[in-house]
Amino acid sequence: MNIQKIEKQTIAFNDAFTKRADALIPTIYKERRRPKQLVEVVEDSNVIHGWRTDKVGDESDLGEIEFGKGDSVIVDFGDHEVGYVTLKLKSVGSPPDAPLHVKLTFGEMPVEVAEPFSSYDGWLSSSWLQEESIYVDVLPHTLSLSRRYSFRYVKINVIDTSPKYRVVIDDIYCDAVSSARSADVQNYTTQDELLADIDHVSIKTLKDCMQDIFEDGPKRDRRLWLGDLRLQALANYKTFATNDLVKRCLYLFAAVPNDKGQVSANVFIQPSLIADDTYLYDYSLFFTTTLYDYYEATKDEKTLIELWPTAYRQLELGLARLDDRFIVQDDETWWSFIDWNNKLNKQAPSQAVLIYALRKGIALARAVEASEQTLLENKLVDIEKATMAHLWDDTKQLFVSGKDKQVSWAAQVWMVLAGVLKQDEGKALMERVITEEPAVSMNTPYMYHHFVEALLKVGMKTEAIKTLKAYWGGMLEDGADTFWELYNPNDKAFSPYGSHLINSYCHAWSCTPTYLIRAYKL
Amino acid sequence: MNIQKIEKQTIAFNDAFTKRADALIPTIYKERRRPKQLVEVVEDSNVIHGWRTDKVGDESDLGEIEFGKGDSVIVDFGDHEVGYVTLKLKSVGSPPDAPLHVKLTFGEMPVEVAEPFSSYDGWLSSSWLQEESIYVDVLPHTLSLSRRYSFRYVKINVIDTSPKYRVVIDDIYCDAVSSARSADVQNYTTQDELLADIDHVSIKTLKDCMQDIFEDGPKRDRRLWLGDLRLQALANYKTFATNDLVKRCLYLFAAVPNDKGQVSANVFIQPSLIADDTYLYDYSLFFTTTLYDYYEATKDEKTLIELWPTAYRQLELGLARLDDRFIVQDDETWWSFIDWNNKLNKQAPSQAVLIYALRKGIALARAVEASEQTLLENKLVDIEKATMAHLWDDTKQLFVSGKDKQVSWAAQVWMVLAGVLKQDEGKALMERVITEEPAVSMNTPYMYHHFVEALLKVGMKTEAIKTLKAYWGGMLEDGADTFWELYNPNDKAFSPYGSHLINSYCHAWSCTPTYLIRAYKL
Repeated sequence: MNIQKIEKQTIAFNDAFTKRADALIPTIYKERRRPKQLVEVVEDSNVIHGWRTDKVGDESDLGEIEFGKGDSVIVDFGDHEVGYVTLKLKSVGSPPDAPLHVKLTFGEMPVEVAEPFSSYDGWLSSSWLQEESIYVDVLPHTLSLSRRYSFRYVKINVIDTSPKYRVVIDDIYCDAVSSARSADVQNYTTQDELLADIDHVSIKTLKDCMQDIFEDGPKRDRRLWLGDLRLQALANYKTFATNDLVKRCLYLFAAVPNDKGQVSANVFIQPSLIADDTYLYDYSLFFTTTLYDYYEATKDEKTLIELWPTAYRQLELGLARLDDRFIVQDDETWWSFIDWNNKLNKQAPSQAVLIYALRKGIALARAVEASEQTLLENKLVDIEKATMAHLWDDTKQLFVSGKDKQVSWAAQVWMVLAGVLKQDEGKALMERVITEEPAVSMNTPYMYHHFVEALLKVGMKTEAIKTLKAYWGGMLEDGADTFWELYNPNDKAFSPYGSHLINSYCHAWSCTPTYLIRAYKL
Repeated sequence: MNIQKIEKQTIAFNDAFTKRADALIPTIYKERRRPKQLVEVVEDSNVIHGWRTDKVGDESDLGEIEFGKGDSVIVDFGDHEVGYVTLKLKSVGSPPDAPLHVKLTFGEMPVEVAEPFSSYDGWLSSSWLQEESIYVDVLPHTLSLSRRYSFRYVKINVIDTSPKYRVVIDDIYCDAVSSARSADVQNYTTQDELLADIDHVSIKTLKDCMQDIFEDGPKRDRRLWLGDLRLQALANYKTFATNDLVKRCLYLFAAVPNDKGQVSANVFIQPSLIADDTYLYDYSLFFTTTLYDYYEATKDEKTLIELWPTAYRQLELGLARLDDRFIVQDDETWWSFIDWNNKLNKQAPSQAVLIYALRKGIALARAVEASEQTLLENKLVDIEKATMAHLWDDTKQLFVSGKDKQVSWAAQVWMVLAGVLKQDEGKALMERVITEEPAVSMNTPYMYHHFVEALLKVGMKTEAIKTLKAYWGGMLEDGADTFWELYNPNDKAFSPYGSHLINSYCHAWSCTPTYLIRAYKL
């Protein structure tokens, strides 16, 4: 995710929190992976992005190939990998009388090693496209790339050798890294094969995003976003239970609020801890809900007590945006994420996120015996009343948002998750949404997650499973090794960034099926 | 220089010689250099290659520039540098939310930072073109390039940052390296200003080529070639007098002859000492003459005694190519370098090189009291007689070469250097060459060196100075900071490689004016 700058903020550092976070830097585990096969990319209009891979050789054939100027090969590791790549290169022919110039292109998907990056014209930085152009002066050479890559395919393109020698790739491997270990995953058995597959790939997705923080995506942005963290943490409690990593991330956010006390939508941890200057209404509130989920999973009172003031402050700031009707103000000066959808009015769903967060906040206030509990409870009553009075359209029997009274899937879903309606009313609403199909639809696995959880919350398990299988199962059918940042079954080339080359194909917010399957025993 | 493969050879290693060479690995001295100014390249048909540089800022302006996507600058170091470049990079704006992608292009000449390398279509490997494409994940960052570059200009092209941040180059410097020290240069004063300039730039050229071996060119091939070594050694005796480096290089060649005992035209020293599979008739004979020059300069008898068998073997192999008339056989299976000139028949100049080498060999045989002295003297008589009988055209009063009896500058020049003619006959021949201007002319500073030395040898000092000033002075006028591998005053874009982008603009074999000026007291 990449949001434009809103305003310059002063960042208040909390050194004690930074130290807590530093003390929790996890061990990074390494596993050496070798390619499974050699492939070529072939145009095929029947597959996603129009490119399929065909096997052209075994992994063991690689060392037999002598590469001269212009020769290339695509090495397929057979699964998604995040790690550090090493190539062992040697020459054949005369002694190398000129440097070797080799280009490496890393692709999570075939399209990335099929279409030239020079064709990229999206609005995210092209520097996210994963490639290296390297000159090797002396052969043989062990080329250990210093950058971490996220990929399944490596295209090796020998730009030039010299007429007198050729180059052989004696070995290529990846030291895959993660702070999660597959052996730690809690056992869970579902009889449904497809759900078992979805569970498995969800866990792989989560694992590849678990580094020294919960990253949103190991290809892009490789960063700690609150919206992703919240979902990763939920998936983590049911799988790796690496709970200290959630704790670390909570302290990282709490260490660098702005001068109003608001936590950023995301933080950088290199070269040192820095809050990004992006503040999102919903994401800041998710600090509170993520602390709630963490406390529920761990009962870690010490952390709860230390972080409660930060969590409470996010609620205060959320409440401060209410107008005198107790409705979240909608104007041009704010940003609430909700979904990647420019058409989506964020007012009603944001109102719902506030209510959702208030409920969790009240529970936390109760746990810490905070004096603010009553205040929050009173506010919640006012807000829920206002929500029904001003955002519920009695004729349509749907929630509406903004001055144009927009009806979106997101508004209905979040109001259900926020518990604004009774269970049977919520179920009726979800059925109405499915039947009426509001035009302002859902664009991301992130939003689909909330849709499925809303269905499960109102007891529509069959519909929930149907959506899980259609949406995440659709990604599997389309060749996902890990779940994607973006997936629109009706427009598989969809990218909010102007090019599917830049999409992340291993993305934290898509890993939630394992949580949904396990928490709701699907 | 780059010669196509001739045949596969077995290499005999002499470990004792390798150890001698290793014991003489020189200290590499470092000097930190900073840019002098910022420039742009401007098309100008009046200057070499059609590109001049115009100053656009002071060096101190660099740190004030904020670079975004697509921005670039050319940093001018003001002189030729060989070394390791460091850039200190930082960001301004929001925290960097995407990697920095930066391209660096290094140019000895403006053309290299003006014309895109993608336009290169020569027959030498494009991997010699000096550039780096680098991704920086975390800013600020001290980017220390691991490869050594040979340049005056560095073009810094910011391919992408992100819309949220820009990059600033806080510092850029080069740790220039050489095994020669300017302070060691022997004093020499010439009253002629232009000759003094030529002397100065010759020494700079030599210095930049003096690394852990005598390199042919620090941009390309960065390698120890015998033809270059011979001339570098001569220039070195009159300037730096770093004689142990000559000794080291002689041992390197002697350590890896082929199974016939022939020394290669060049050797690689990385990853370990390897003889190239290129064998040149003239270059192998220059092992003998280079040992002679070394002994003359140092009177190092121990080295002479150890290397005499190798030197003698080169003469034997040179003699083995004579036909029963005592004339070097000319056919399609051999290669003698002489000059970069496809039209040049190599027979007569090679015959002259053999005679030239025999004279030096006889002097060495005398010094070591070798029994072979008489044999060599007898051969020399036969060969000189045969040369006049078969290669001298009495009608034309010129030497001719090959079955087509080609008349070239090279043949006349080398016959004079070989001392085949008496001094007055030699002078008459050189005057005839200048008057008649044979069509097969001279293409390289390497050949021009021999022409000037031939003029000096026959006492035509005025003509010699005239040529020095016109040819090397011409390079100075055309903007040389160091002397070039190739220079044709009548075709300044000349490259034997199909593109002047790949030419070396600091080349050992062009450093000889300092030797000529000092040895002949010009």
